[in-house]
Amino acid sequence: MRADGRAVDEPRVVSFQRGFIGQTSGSVLVATGNTRVICTASVDEKVPRWMKGTGKGWVTGEYGMLPGSTNTRMAREAARGKQKGRTMEIQRLIGRALRAVVDMEALGERTIWIDCDVIEADGGTRTASVTGGFVALTEALVGLRDKGAFEQLPLRDSVSAISCGVVNGEPVLDLPYEEDSTADVDMNFVITGSGDFVEVQGTAEGEPFSRATMDRLTDLALIGCGQLATMQQELFPDVDFAALRAGGTR
Amino acid sequence: MRADGRAVDEPRVVSFQRGFIGQTSGSVLVATGNTRVICTASVDEKVPRWMKGTGKGWVTGEYGMLPGSTNTRMAREAARGKQKGRTMEIQRLIGRALRAVVDMEALGERTIWIDCDVIEADGGTRTASVTGGFVALTEALVGLRDKGAFEQLPLRDSVSAISCGVVNGEPVLDLPYEEDSTADVDMNFVITGSGDFVEVQGTAEGEPFSRATMDRLTDLALIGCGQLATMQQELFPDVDFAALRAGGTR
Amino acid sequence: MRADGRAVDEPRVVSFQRGFIGQTSGSVLVATGNTRVICTASVDEKVPRWMKGTGKGWVTGEYGMLPGSTNTRMAREAARGKQKGRTMEIQRLIGRALRAVVDMEALGERTIWIDCDVIEADGGTRTASVTGGFVALTEALVGLRDKGAFEQLPLRDSVSAISCGVVNGEPVLDLPYEEDSTADVDMNFVITGSGDFVEVQGTAEGEPFSRATMDRLTDLALIGCGQLATMQQELFPDVDFAALRAGGTR
Amino acid sequence: MRADGRAVDEPRVVSFQRGFIGQTSGSVLVATGNTRVICTASVDEKVPRWMKGTGKGWVTGEYGMLPGSTNTRMAREAARGKQKGRTMEIQRLIGRALRAVVDMEALGERTIWIDCDVIEADGGTRTASVTGGFVALTEALVGLRDKGAFEQLPLRDSVSAISCGVVNGEPVLDLPYEEDSTADVDMNFVITGSGDFVEVQGTAEGEPFSRATMDRLTDLALIGCGQLATMQQELFPDVDFAALRAGGTR
Amino acid sequence: MRADGRAVDEPRVVSFQRGFIGQTSGSVLVATGNTRVICTASVDEKVPRWMKGTGKGWVTGEYGMLPGSTNTRMAREAARGKQKGRTMEIQRLIGRALRAVVDMEALGERTIWIDCDVIEADGGTRTASVTGGFVALTEALVGLRDKGAFEQLPLRDSVSAISCGVVNGEPVLDLPYEEDSTADVDMNFVITGSGDFVEVQGTAEGEPFSRATMDRLTDLALIGCGQLATMQQELFPDVDFAALRAGGTR
Amino acid sequence: MRADGRAVDEPRVVSFQRGFIGQTSGSVLVATGNTRVICTASVDEKVPRWMKGTGKGWVTGEYGMLPGSTNTRMAREAARGKQKGRTMEIQRLIGRALRAVVDMEALGERTIWIDCDVIEADGGTRTASVTGGFVALTEALVGLRDKGAFEQLPLRDSVSAISCGVVNGEPVLDLPYEEDSTADVDMNFVITGSGDFVEVQGTAEGEPFSRATMDRLTDLALIGCGQLATMQQELFPDVDFAALRAGGTR
Repeated sequence: MRADGRAVDEPRVVSFQRGFIGQTSGSVLVATGNTRVICTASVDEKVPRWMKGTGKGWVTGEYGMLPGSTNTRMAREAARGKQKGRTMEIQRLIGRALRAVVDMEALGERTIWIDCDVIEADGGTRTASVTGGFVALTEALVGLRDKGAFEQLPLRDSVSAISCGVVNGEPVLDLPYEEDSTADVDMNFVITGSGDFVEVQGTAEGEPFSRATMDRLTDLALIGCGQLATMQQELFPDVDFAALRAGGTR
Repeated sequence: MRADGRAVDEPRVVSFQRGFIGQTSGSVLVATGNTRVICTASVDEKVPRWMKGTGKGWVTGEYGMLPGSTNTRMAREAARGKQKGRTMEIQRLIGRALRAVVDMEALGERTIWIDCDVIEADGGTRTASVTGGFVALTEALVGLRDKGAFEQLPLRDSVSAISCGVVNGEPVLDLPYEEDSTADVDMNFVITGSGDFVEVQGTAEGEPFSRATMDRLTDLALIGCGQLATMQQELFPDVDFAALRAGGTR
Repeated sequence: MRADGRAVDEPRVVSFQRGFIGQTSGSVLVATGNTRVICTASVDEKVPRWMKGTGKGWVTGEYGMLPGSTNTRMAREAARGKQKGRTMEIQRLIGRALRAVVDMEALGERTIWIDCDVIEADGGTRTASVTGGFVALTEALVGLRDKGAFEQLPLRDSVSAISCGVVNGEPVLDLPYEEDSTADVDMNFVITGSGDFVEVQGTAEGEPFSRATMDRLTDLALIGCGQLATMQQELFPDVDFAALRAGGTR
Repeated sequence: MRADGRAVDEPRVVSFQRGFIGQTSGSVLVATGNTRVICTASVDEKVPRWMKGTGKGWVTGEYGMLPGSTNTRMAREAARGKQKGRTMEIQRLIGRALRAVVDMEALGERTIWIDCDVIEADGGTRTASVTGGFVALTEALVGLRDKGAFEQLPLRDSVSAISCGVVNGEPVLDLPYEEDSTADVDMNFVITGSGDFVEVQGTAEGEPFSRATMDRLTDLALIGCGQLATMQQELFPDVDFAALRAGGTR
Repeated sequence: MRADGRAVDEPRVVSFQRGFIGQTSGSVLVATGNTRVICTASVDEKVPRWMKGTGKGWVTGEYGMLPGSTNTRMAREAARGKQKGRTMEIQRLIGRALRAVVDMEALGERTIWIDCDVIEADGGTRTASVTGGFVALTEALVGLRDKGAFEQLPLRDSVSAISCGVVNGEPVLDLPYEEDSTADVDMNFVITGSGDFVEVQGTAEGEPFSRATMDRLTDLALIGCGQLATMQQELFPDVDFAALRAGGTR
Repeated sequence: MRADGRAVDEPRVVSFQRGFIGQTSGSVLVATGNTRVICTASVDEKVPRWMKGTGKGWVTGEYGMLPGSTNTRMAREAARGKQKGRTMEIQRLIGRALRAVVDMEALGERTIWIDCDVIEADGGTRTASVTGGFVALTEALVGLRDKGAFEQLPLRDSVSAISCGVVNGEPVLDLPYEEDSTADVDMNFVITGSGDFVEVQGTAEGEPFSRATMDRLTDLALIGCGQLATMQQELFPDVDFAALRAGGTR
């Protein structure tokens, strides 16, 4: 029995508030328990210099935490003059995760910026950013399609992310800060709607972990991301992610 | 008649969502028309080095805009590695505005950080930050008082801010982005609950302006801040700002 | 009676040493009491990227203080690796102030850099920078005109700046450091030769101030800038600022 | 059959040149195929401020690439003024990997800096850095033990790292740059001498990968790290890593 | 015959305006031909951390150029966010040059900051900075002595600097910009009042130079610095640099 | 007799390991006593923007020290976010030294980057960098010539560097760290194969030095660089540096 009463394979309550910011092409406020992240998708009709003329598009992610999002105020990175290693690691993860399900040729020479800004942090901010970032991205792509940028959404699948860990010797799904801060193992998974892996990141915070533990954590992640994929599908009733998967030949 | 149908001396609809972030000492989501700012107040039981041993406290402000808060994505300052001049100017304004109504000796040797992060920008973000920042500050001070840090709130008055400008030759109150971007004059006022001035900043974006124009814009600002002061009082029914003003002998 | 014997509405002695630096297009050493600022104007036959092809010119200001300009040595910003918020605020002010009286279309696609470097600081460095910056700018424009860049000076008026404040409860004009450091209110005005306002910046350092005080400080500023405008006209006997004002239709 | 003739589960030739740098406490030149990394361990008899008084030590890693280490010159990070996200990600990985096998209480209040500088890069620089970093670390710890800093080495196990990936649809072990640049999946494993996991990082560069693929890549990594652990043991004949493991109760 | 009519061994006209800045402990405006540098000396009653408790003082130099000091505007280093290599090289030279003639133990635990800011540049700014920096330093030391910080000036000699070079195949003394920009060899000398060398820096800008050339340039420098030493002595009639030299036993 | 048994005019043992890095155009591991530096030459078929269209090439140097190269770990400049003044001074020296012997017109519009990274530091790292940098440069130029970039090597001479100093009152050649750290005078010479000077840098670390001392140190440097020039010639038996010198008309 966990501190918040959840079963070991039970994720926190998730909600999505689409269109949370009025002006951007796509936006969502994603909440996972007390963790809340504003994800926006901004379309830029250019690509980075090294991609010009390739005919391909680009998707990139940025991540930040509001100073008041944590219990103890977190110093503002803009004021410190540089982003922390953790921040850079997370935003690289977000970018890779989303690019994995986008057909860059079908997207065409434009860049989608996915900004994930944590307004309240209680564990799992990077995974919520991926899950919400995909929603913002899809919203922006739907908008582009409706304006005639392309006929079919340049997506090959949906994608979501969740964390697992070993707490008090027990593998559990979706750790809040309280569990995360004492976990022996911390694993983050990015998984497509069809159950394939985009990113697997596991770290032994305490004792190194066995292969059996890794297997069990993988089971849990598949359960969690399966539920997230279902929710993502429900948010976009007019998009058939299964069909996109089927046609996703590269 | 203005583009959004308001009278020249009519401010936009304002709302305050107190306690918007669960973990910080004080927080509010302030909305002024489409402009929305998350203001948080974080208490740090230390003061900057140059104030140690003075027995006085400190209040400081920081300001930022989410990249997705504007029509065209605004580059993330943390990624650029430095804050823009405009950002520094605004956060210095927020700090000065709030310090003007705080009794630093009564506050005692602690720092209150006021973070104002714009999640949607439609003009007037700096004035909304001051107005909301005061709400977050008061919330944090009430919390400290309830924990016994001091008996009486270390406030001498309430404070709010609003912008005015000359649009199409006409002085108007509380400009949204559409008006602001074409205004000839842009003035921002920070005014206490008792109607005195903390900050006055006027800039001729086009033609220099006459003293009569400055007088008229001042009239408008007093109308707008008077309404904001009333709303701030209503948010804290248990605090009597008029009484604080009366006792505010320095 | 003030510490230096001046009347409340009496500015400090001002002097201008034109052509102080031999090589730049325009330069002046402006002294206001003990405050001394070297202002130079450098012409760059380019405009910033975002202005290319618009046919318009640009005027921009930069500001700095020599480390030895103050009583206690001020750390060199170039060595610290960034400019302070105060510096950025001041240089933004200088740029806005000067741009307000320049006809950018008549200037044509070139940039005038106005550098204001304080060699001795005794209060009022930002206002001396604006006043001197205009002299350096005019000198550079005269030089450009004489070389045939344009027939008429691309100016619509002259511009100068002065500070006022409330010291010991009394509104006074043109504060030296000794008064400035204890003032309750500090206001800076940028005013054209015709007496209109370009910038008004007032800050309550101590008690918030009343509208009556603001009015009185405005009166004082008009007196001070009126005298500065006269001196600026005398520095350029061949330029008729009144005529430029008359023709200043935009 | 792979481009360099190796079997799919065959690592590249590895060599260690211990004591490569004369002056540091520990150093090694590790070569994996054409990839060569200088790893040094420097002892600092202090800990970071936030650890003072805890009685515990600290191990931290830094990573860099010489500009001439790659085919096309890589810009020097010191000259650019900041480390890339990739660099920060790698040095965080090195630090976590090594800390996982160190008993910080037994180490005592001192810091071991592990610097990994790539002098020639041909894929797998981060895993070679971990493997070589452990050798440099052990060398430094042996030196400290011989000087009486502690009786027993403050190690709980050895640790090494290797990469795997899917190349042309085939899971293979230890990818050189040629394979890495076209791989569909890239996984890095950090594994202890006893075969437990410290870090698992898998990324789909192309198609998301199945659980079966992940299992196969994990098999390959265990083969590779098993061989590395044997080599590490042989480098330190006087240290019994198996015994350290046995006593590693935390 | 040189472009400005000087003989090959004739320095430019030099002048010193002592006390140029009212507030600092020492200051001078030094002019060498059209090159003008403001040198100030600021006393800080502390030493850098690594010198605390040694009983010794410290002298350090900083250097900058006003943006308008050159023909083509030079970008402000504070705005660029870092000092150029040339700047750092020069300010290191200034510090070394001045420290060479100061008795740090007699100075006691205080730091003298020498700031050299070029207001007009026409070649030889680094050597003028050393020569003028010594004047500002001496002025500050005299002030400290008069306040009782020490009985005797903590100086062991005077010091000055001058440049030489090979122009059109001819070794010449004290190059203005016009000569410097086409010189084949550029040498800078820092020489004490007694004719010994503190710094010698020679660079072949074009053809490498022979030993005979180096000898001839050294002759010229001794002539030039001899004259500067005489002028420095005349500026301080109450200080007997020859006597300080005699007592300069370390 | 010196601490390491050498005569006063005897340099340390020098060795060159050519082709030390497999992938770059030129590379060498140069060792001078315990000082070891990896020098690489990378060819970039572009020139800096300000040189485009001039038909000339460019040679530039960069310098760094591995953190573990010194007794006490040296903080990584990339992590500190900026290069030290000493580093910038040294890399400017390397660039100037090598450019002095290159015929830029014959090189053509390409840039050669010379990177000198110290892996073990025991005095004389900057001079070893110049000496080794020339070897890497020549190796790269030979490669370009063999690929047909030009018929004859665009070199006018060879170049090497060595340090001298006054230790315990005695002028000596080629100082290791132990001598360098207590030397009264430190001089570095960059000398061509024909015995002319490219750079002369002398600094009095303690007492200023006499002209006789300078002469003696120059004698020693000529001895040392003469031997280095011979070794450089032996490394490239197919290149006739004497012939290049003869044809070196500019």
